[in-house]
Amino acid sequence: MIFAKGAQATANFTGAAWVNLLVPDANGTYNCQAYDVLFEAGARNDWHSHPGGQLLFATDGKGYYQEKGKPALLLQKGDVVQILPDVVHWHGAAPDSDFTHLGVSPNIQKGSTVWIAPVTDEEYQRATGGIQ
Amino acid sequence: MIFAKGAQATANFTGAAWVNLLVPDANGTYNCQAYDVLFEAGARNDWHSHPGGQLLFATDGKGYYQEKGKPALLLQKGDVVQILPDVVHWHGAAPDSDFTHLGVSPNIQKGSTVWIAPVTDEEYQRATGGIQ
Repeated sequence: MIFAKGAQATANFTGAAWVNLLVPDANGTYNCQAYDVLFEAGARNDWHSHPGGQLLFATDGKGYYQEKGKPALLLQKGDVVQILPDVVHWHGAAPDSDFTHLGVSPNIQKGSTVWIAPVTDEEYQRATGGIQ
Repeated sequence: MIFAKGAQATANFTGAAWVNLLVPDANGTYNCQAYDVLFEAGARNDWHSHPGGQLLFATDGKGYYQEKGKPALLLQKGDVVQILPDVVHWHGAAPDSDFTHLGVSPNIQKGSTVWIAPVTDEEYQRATGGIQ
């Protein structure tokens, strides 16, 4: 682990995940928040989008990133994901591995994360290879 | 190492450093660039500032961050530095250890890095404990 384990997420996730808000940017100096997220195997966040886009930097374990209507992408240490504004997506751990990424939300002056709906077990299993 | 070693920096550094521009943001979608920098022991960038501020995330080794007129801070894996806009500073490796950080430059629409002058050997040695 690079960053300390944060607080367990209590909303907008399925399964256990811990979020360490490294740069809260409470006064908007950077227009940018940064956070470390550790997902337990099988855990993922809900379908969501960001008005200002999002950047993910995979640092440990094995995870997935999926945009609505597309196949999921496997993420491993060193992978970087650039998520365009308003693109509906989720990210999380693989079924058999924990996963850690650093996340950056730029342009937060454009608005907060839009949470949509949980990634169902069936959606998750299809995305990660559990259902062909 | 988490990210692939980038290209060796050819300007604005003393000593060997490699920069991997992970998010170039060429079309300004994110107003934010991200890059991994590996500094060889003793290497550091020049005194500089950022109109939009900068965020550093130490991921490996031992390094230093110094703001003009202040003591240098030791940086180790997991340390995060939030650098306010226009604050003159440098960062780099310790004399006896390589150092790697992820860097994020938010608000790049506010302008490019302002490079000022090299960190002299004497400044570096004073900052990192070589000269008391």
